[in-house]
Amino acid sequence: MADTALDGLIEALRRLPGVGVKSAQRMAYHLLQHDRDGARRIATALTDAATRIRHCARCHTFTETEVCGTCSDARRDARLLAVVESPADQAAMERSGSYRGLYFVLMGRLSPLDGIGVADIGADALLARACDGVVEEVILATGFTAEGELTAHALAQALKARGLKVTRLARGVPAGSELEYVDLSTIAYALVDRR
Amino acid sequence: MADTALDGLIEALRRLPGVGVKSAQRMAYHLLQHDRDGARRIATALTDAATRIRHCARCHTFTETEVCGTCSDARRDARLLAVVESPADQAAMERSGSYRGLYFVLMGRLSPLDGIGVADIGADALLARACDGVVEEVILATGFTAEGELTAHALAQALKARGLKVTRLARGVPAGSELEYVDLSTIAYALVDRR
Repeated sequence: MADTALDGLIEALRRLPGVGVKSAQRMAYHLLQHDRDGARRIATALTDAATRIRHCARCHTFTETEVCGTCSDARRDARLLAVVESPADQAAMERSGSYRGLYFVLMGRLSPLDGIGVADIGADALLARACDGVVEEVILATGFTAEGELTAHALAQALKARGLKVTRLARGVPAGSELEYVDLSTIAYALVDRR
Repeated sequence: MADTALDGLIEALRRLPGVGVKSAQRMAYHLLQHDRDGARRIATALTDAATRIRHCARCHTFTETEVCGTCSDARRDARLLAVVESPADQAAMERSGSYRGLYFVLMGRLSPLDGIGVADIGADALLARACDGVVEEVILATGFTAEGELTAHALAQALKARGLKVTRLARGVPAGSELEYVDLSTIAYALVDRR
């Protein structure tokens, strides 16, 4: 039966997103039975990260320095600023190898139903960042979900009101897709945005 | 972009069972963005558990003492010994409220394909425990999966060779089921074991 430290571990693991009581139990049993070294490593990594990681003063992504490596890279094109929802989205754009500008990471997206408004995604900081006199074009690269579109729409209005050029990633048929398997609204958008 | 402490955290979280790189990223971002207190609590709980939890000398379950609370409970019937695969299975039997005997927790099950043999599930310790002169009946309560059945079969042979009474949990139609929705092999077993 569960003793105190085991109950405490299961309870703590449930704080991880997507982990319910069954998964937390499975994780705890696995670590205690097969990977105590792993348990200690995860503990150290968590403490390290919680202590050392902060937000980049320029783009808000996670970093251990005042300004992140991307923002302080002089080879990047400071006239382009891509607005993304998360460091994961930023990483996906970097992997594409086709963007050489800078980023602003919202660390979220507008979600009125969850009470997440413009203040929560650092819209003021984005406006200040985009009006630094160097940025010429803001590329809205939020997701093509309802919330991502809402976020892009709200930010586009605020940015345009300050006289900035604002663009949005193109919608269309994904590379490598057969038309037969592409959903209808994607085909509709690809028709409208045909070039 | 990811700096060292963040990469380290994502890498460490991947050691959790069922957690791939995407889930590990999501967990790391969630903890750093919304729940740094949670990150520290999980770290403490992991260190605590890895340091304090060991195996009960009698039944092998997780405990913080030499002998677990269940094994040292004098009100339990020491003539009955239920063999289960995991603390989770033991907890399920306890919740049923219909068992007052003691347990032996294998902390695994036979799995020849994964190279898990009788030595890995503490079969010798079970035999020594069951032959203490007090145990009169060993109830094999491993799962009704292929591996659970194999484990029960192997243990039954070894226990019977030592003259112990060995029983197995009954197979049959689950309580509350409509026959229409019960799988065929369960109905077949329920017919064979009808009483």
